[in-house]
Amino acid sequence: MLRFILSAPLLLIIISPAVSFGFEYLQPLPKSPVIPEGNPQTKDKINLGKQLFFDPRLSVDGVISCNSCHNLADSGDTETSVINIANRQYNRNAPSLWNIGHMSTYYWDARAKSLEQQAEDHLLDPRVMAISDKAVLTKRINAIPGYQKSFEKVFGKNAVTFENITKAIAAFERTLNTPNSDFDLYIQGDKSKLNSAAKRGLTLFNDKGCLSCHFGVNFAGPAPGPALKMGDGFYEMFPNYRGTFYEKKYNFVEDLGRYHVTLDPSHKVMWRVPSLRNVMETAPYFHNGAIHDIHLAVRIMSEVQFHYEISDKEVSDIVEFLKTLTGKFPTISLPRLPSSEGKNALN
Amino acid sequence: MLRFILSAPLLLIIISPAVSFGFEYLQPLPKSPVIPEGNPQTKDKINLGKQLFFDPRLSVDGVISCNSCHNLADSGDTETSVINIANRQYNRNAPSLWNIGHMSTYYWDARAKSLEQQAEDHLLDPRVMAISDKAVLTKRINAIPGYQKSFEKVFGKNAVTFENITKAIAAFERTLNTPNSDFDLYIQGDKSKLNSAAKRGLTLFNDKGCLSCHFGVNFAGPAPGPALKMGDGFYEMFPNYRGTFYEKKYNFVEDLGRYHVTLDPSHKVMWRVPSLRNVMETAPYFHNGAIHDIHLAVRIMSEVQFHYEISDKEVSDIVEFLKTLTGKFPTISLPRLPSSEGKNALN
Repeated sequence: MLRFILSAPLLLIIISPAVSFGFEYLQPLPKSPVIPEGNPQTKDKINLGKQLFFDPRLSVDGVISCNSCHNLADSGDTETSVINIANRQYNRNAPSLWNIGHMSTYYWDARAKSLEQQAEDHLLDPRVMAISDKAVLTKRINAIPGYQKSFEKVFGKNAVTFENITKAIAAFERTLNTPNSDFDLYIQGDKSKLNSAAKRGLTLFNDKGCLSCHFGVNFAGPAPGPALKMGDGFYEMFPNYRGTFYEKKYNFVEDLGRYHVTLDPSHKVMWRVPSLRNVMETAPYFHNGAIHDIHLAVRIMSEVQFHYEISDKEVSDIVEFLKTLTGKFPTISLPRLPSSEGKNALN
Repeated sequence: MLRFILSAPLLLIIISPAVSFGFEYLQPLPKSPVIPEGNPQTKDKINLGKQLFFDPRLSVDGVISCNSCHNLADSGDTETSVINIANRQYNRNAPSLWNIGHMSTYYWDARAKSLEQQAEDHLLDPRVMAISDKAVLTKRINAIPGYQKSFEKVFGKNAVTFENITKAIAAFERTLNTPNSDFDLYIQGDKSKLNSAAKRGLTLFNDKGCLSCHFGVNFAGPAPGPALKMGDGFYEMFPNYRGTFYEKKYNFVEDLGRYHVTLDPSHKVMWRVPSLRNVMETAPYFHNGAIHDIHLAVRIMSEVQFHYEISDKEVSDIVEFLKTLTGKFPTISLPRLPSSEGKNALN
């Protein structure tokens, strides 16, 4: 049985997954995600956030930037399952940052309520950026004259604070959107954008139950809005049926997901529902990145979530539909990072 | 005493370092480096090379791209002395890739005669990209449809060869130039571009002997041309005077440089002369990246190369001159990497 953390209105879809497809649960990508009141978007803030995003000086040893694991030249994630940088080993598959502003919660285990919180967590996480203390980073950034100037322009005097660093990064991340996928154009009326296999795939996507979790603008459950407060999150049990061949083969339950955050036994193997936008670009798949092929990923979802057998033809049709979720990636110019001016900023 | 690997014409400067400054040994950055006959520049090849440069799928485990250590958002090098990625530890400070086409040889120990060779060496180096065998990489790249198409367009049919991978990367790298530094404008006639401290610094740069190695378009000795065949290289002993306080404190002779390549005892502690263009951006300094401040780097050079004492004022003037070597960095748009299309290209 599927278990949801959400209440009444959404249950409608869950209890009737085989009901005919309802467009009301699928929408094109909006122009912009919801912008939180405390962090309005400005051009200067976004540009500053872009510099910080690409700047390895934000990691303890100057080796990695946000872009090292969330590669915007690519799918906004890593090609590898889990990454080991400078002997720091993270334990989960990096999610794509494209369209990330449309998520209702952050991290696979939904431990951060906003992109700002997410940035804070990763900066201080000893497995990631490994900054030992907020003051270490603000001192380092403040010593780079170009940053000092930009922070003042964006946030006012004495503006190089840890909070403002995370605000600028989040503002940049909210611009990372890939609109106008074939699916988006289709749902807006251009019926030629889905071929017949993709159309069959879309019907199967509903009939098989995929849509019961992967709905909404980001195919990841509800985006923040009237139905869901930012940070409330939408998570799901994976695997839903326990003890399958696939579960054992790919160690799906080695990591207990949200349980590690709440210690609530009912949260064992609960995970934030990942977005399916650009899913053809984001292999490997699942929280542990154990699956390297989209066809196998679809088959596994069918087996471990619904205990349905699924034919090769059905898998292939669903994949044809998933292909239509690849959006148009904006061109990003590499920022020029402010100079350390003859010094090593790490020392 | 300074020892050179070069012959007659250059000795002129060496034996008379205190002779008044000769503009003939300093030139503005040319529009383009020398392009080798076997690898002409084309727009498509450069674009393909840019994709490869930013693509972590060129490393064994998909963790790093060329840009990870030669960060083009920054100085084309790393902020850290030596880098440790995925338990692979390289032993030398990454040189900047800006203006790299103007070098006559590659690596600190001059072990590669061309950028193409340099790329080959790093792809196969178990401490860097760690590709176990050329065929492993060509198979991987060939399985990515977008690359297959681009290689065919650039090189013809069945074009995904290891050699062509290195050619495309080198073609892109030859576009990484930072012309129009204040020094370049000064030497072309705009005398206002050097303030009086920088002018004093330029005179000191000659009088103290710096110019005896750091001359030519890249302040790194001769660029390939009539005087020097590509790959012949220009290296120098560092430290020139042995046993100093600085040598011991910063372990300068732990690594014997070119000797490790040739096993010729006369090559002990011989190093390719590094470029000084954009040197304010390239901290830390020296082959082991042990020095974190440009002022200290200048002082050390004076002491260990020439056994000159140098005053704070002189150091400061020389640094003012070095500041004028920062060029105009071109805007680089992040490439879109070709899709692995629902697969993990590493598997």
